Amino acid sequence: MVIVGGGFAGLATARSLSRKLVDVVLVDQHNFHTFQPLLYQVATAGLEPADVAYPVRTIFGRSPNITFRHGKVTAIDLDARKLAFSDGTNLAYDQLVLASGATAGYYGIPGARDHARPLYTLSDARRLRNHLLGCLEAADARPEDFDGGAPVFVIVGGGPTGVETAGALVELLDVSVRRDRLRIDPKRTRVVLVDSGDSLLAGFTTTARRYAEQTLRARGVEVRLSSTVAEVTANGVRLSGGEWIKAAAVVWASGVTVNGTLGSSLGLPSGAGGRLEVQADLSLAGHPEVFVVGDAAAVPSGGRRSGPCPQLAPVAIQSGTHVGRQILRRTAGETTEPFTYRDKGIMATIGRRAAVAQLWRGPVLRGTLGWLAWLALHLVYLVGFRNRLVVLVNWAWRYLDWPSGPRLIVADLDVGSALDD
Amino acid sequence: MVIVGGGFAGLATARSLSRKLVDVVLVDQHNFHTFQPLLYQVATAGLEPADVAYPVRTIFGRSPNITFRHGKVTAIDLDARKLAFSDGTNLAYDQLVLASGATAGYYGIPGARDHARPLYTLSDARRLRNHLLGCLEAADARPEDFDGGAPVFVIVGGGPTGVETAGALVELLDVSVRRDRLRIDPKRTRVVLVDSGDSLLAGFTTTARRYAEQTLRARGVEVRLSSTVAEVTANGVRLSGGEWIKAAAVVWASGVTVNGTLGSSLGLPSGAGGRLEVQADLSLAGHPEVFVVGDAAAVPSGGRRSGPCPQLAPVAIQSGTHVGRQILRRTAGETTEPFTYRDKGIMATIGRRAAVAQLWRGPVLRGTLGWLAWLALHLVYLVGFRNRLVVLVNWAWRYLDWPSGPRLIVADLDVGSALDD
Repeated sequence: MVIVGGGFAGLATARSLSRKLVDVVLVDQHNFHTFQPLLYQVATAGLEPADVAYPVRTIFGRSPNITFRHGKVTAIDLDARKLAFSDGTNLAYDQLVLASGATAGYYGIPGARDHARPLYTLSDARRLRNHLLGCLEAADARPEDFDGGAPVFVIVGGGPTGVETAGALVELLDVSVRRDRLRIDPKRTRVVLVDSGDSLLAGFTTTARRYAEQTLRARGVEVRLSSTVAEVTANGVRLSGGEWIKAAAVVWASGVTVNGTLGSSLGLPSGAGGRLEVQADLSLAGHPEVFVVGDAAAVPSGGRRSGPCPQLAPVAIQSGTHVGRQILRRTAGETTEPFTYRDKGIMATIGRRAAVAQLWRGPVLRGTLGWLAWLALHLVYLVGFRNRLVVLVNWAWRYLDWPSGPRLIVADLDVGSALDD
Repeated sequence: MVIVGGGFAGLATARSLSRKLVDVVLVDQHNFHTFQPLLYQVATAGLEPADVAYPVRTIFGRSPNITFRHGKVTAIDLDARKLAFSDGTNLAYDQLVLASGATAGYYGIPGARDHARPLYTLSDARRLRNHLLGCLEAADARPEDFDGGAPVFVIVGGGPTGVETAGALVELLDVSVRRDRLRIDPKRTRVVLVDSGDSLLAGFTTTARRYAEQTLRARGVEVRLSSTVAEVTANGVRLSGGEWIKAAAVVWASGVTVNGTLGSSLGLPSGAGGRLEVQADLSLAGHPEVFVVGDAAAVPSGGRRSGPCPQLAPVAIQSGTHVGRQILRRTAGETTEPFTYRDKGIMATIGRRAAVAQLWRGPVLRGTLGWLAWLALHLVYLVGFRNRLVVLVNWAWRYLDWPSGPRLIVADLDVGSALDD
């Protein structure tokens, strides 16, 4: 059987099939898995790419039944049961798990695709970091190029990614001025967080949402609620109300859509954001040999709730694990079971020693306590991938000692042999 | 005063002026210093870019008299005493230290500049790594694309960089096949090291040279001596004897030349490899306010030896430190002194537990002992930059535990705001 995609969902499927009596080929266009929840840290120079990315071959080094295929899938032929790669080769499957994920969604806003900077892949994060640090160096070298002598950064989208990026960005600015002695006036450097809703962190409780907004404002972020973006240009954004904000960078943290070509090449029914409709067991209607998991699927919540699950890492992991289990059930001649999402809570960090952790049916943790909860959870997940104490120590150290961590602008002028992003 | 270049030479000058009564502007096109002797490890996936690169601002965070300017110098006007940057701005100097380094030299060999892969900058190393790992994945996915089903890698140049890269590459191949289960026949995968001389490691003693050659051969490297490259194409190299070697990658580790435009824009006398001729105190004839240090200069050996020093890190560091001292002497109203190179020895590593360390007037250390000497020296230098025990531990761990370290292919499709390489 074949799994397309080495994100949380595809990896969870593969893991649940590790060392079982089934041959698995895991396909991805990158040779590494990306720990997406921490990409904003790479973008704001808190972590290095290698801290949030792990080679797939290393993850499954001791799972002889799982092999890896480095390749970009361009089409799926459901009737012939085979995949086509961009290099012209094909791969046949008996069972397929589609875990091809999502990508930044621009909702047709003029200029957004060309000028806003998404934060969805490791390359996105590296590019954004190079750009942010480059802006700061440019403002140091040529303040006359910036209104008021300092750059303005706009972040579009007040969900966890936007909130976390805004919080980390004000910290980066603080470090750059204080420790790196960049000649930028911190009072003139603006970080503007724009969201169309009437609060940040939609989906969280009122307490959590209010805490996030107050904390960000206290740390110097301008929070613009009930504001939508009408246009993005190379020089800034225009809000729907007509206001123009000249910006050195526009970060796009606003929603995701299913990875374009793959889903649509199937010609199958899809829901909001292009997510593929699936059965209760997460298989495709009419194609029981094909499962769709993670962000690519409109994963039904199951149980007493209705509607699809949000596109979150826990949903991706649980749906991937579920499908792995169903494949084993089928191998054993059993029928498949419906998926039920177990919501264990959601969390978002605002910066050092400030986060909200909203545990399912439990309390909302805020401030340092929320931050420690956030840190602990992410460390546990990260260690799950690398599985060695030294990585935990190293990562914790880098994170805690962040102000003196590496802030490199490393450009690559050539894509080499790596596949398209 | 202004220092152009943040390599070993420029950094040594700045360090010797740290916290002295002189205002220093250190200029570099990158915001980081690169520890070049370990670039081959980044290229062969043993170390991460952040392990061998340190932000210049961090290095001088506690030196208030040293400021950093991120910019690419395009011309120097010796009469007007000012530098021009690629962004159109200028910078005046009273004293100038030119530490602009060297770059790969191709000696006019057809195709070398376009198709061979140098290993001189951090971006070079990342590109080479992406390409090498990409070749291995391609051979796994499409063995029919390779003669004999496995890629051939050619390294041109048998100096320390070539020897170290060849040794690290056979180790990478071993790990890829053994731990990552890449479906490549290790017996068909060839690493060919080509050198025009009659031995590897010219400049080392006969014992050291013979040891390096024997060890590399024992580890599976094909060593081709007395062979020059006549042509490089996208598909391989043709040797002067007419032999054609089809290769998936041609690594260029053969000599350096002075960074093009800067030296020649001065219209001054230069020696072999374009190195600028300097006075005994390392200043330019007729321009006592300008010093040239490191690879950019034909640094006179001084003392009883004659001829210019080799382009090595110790020469760069010693010449940089010397010039810093001369600038302080001038400030104190004293005359400048001639430079004398103190040769403390040379070393090259061949792989895990195999290196040659040739101490000046001392013994040649080989094997594990040589390797430990090599490791100790590099650790000491690295720690000098980051100055924290945790980095030492982390780096040592990553190095020793290398087989399970990160092997990521991370492409950047966009140079963002980073300056040209």
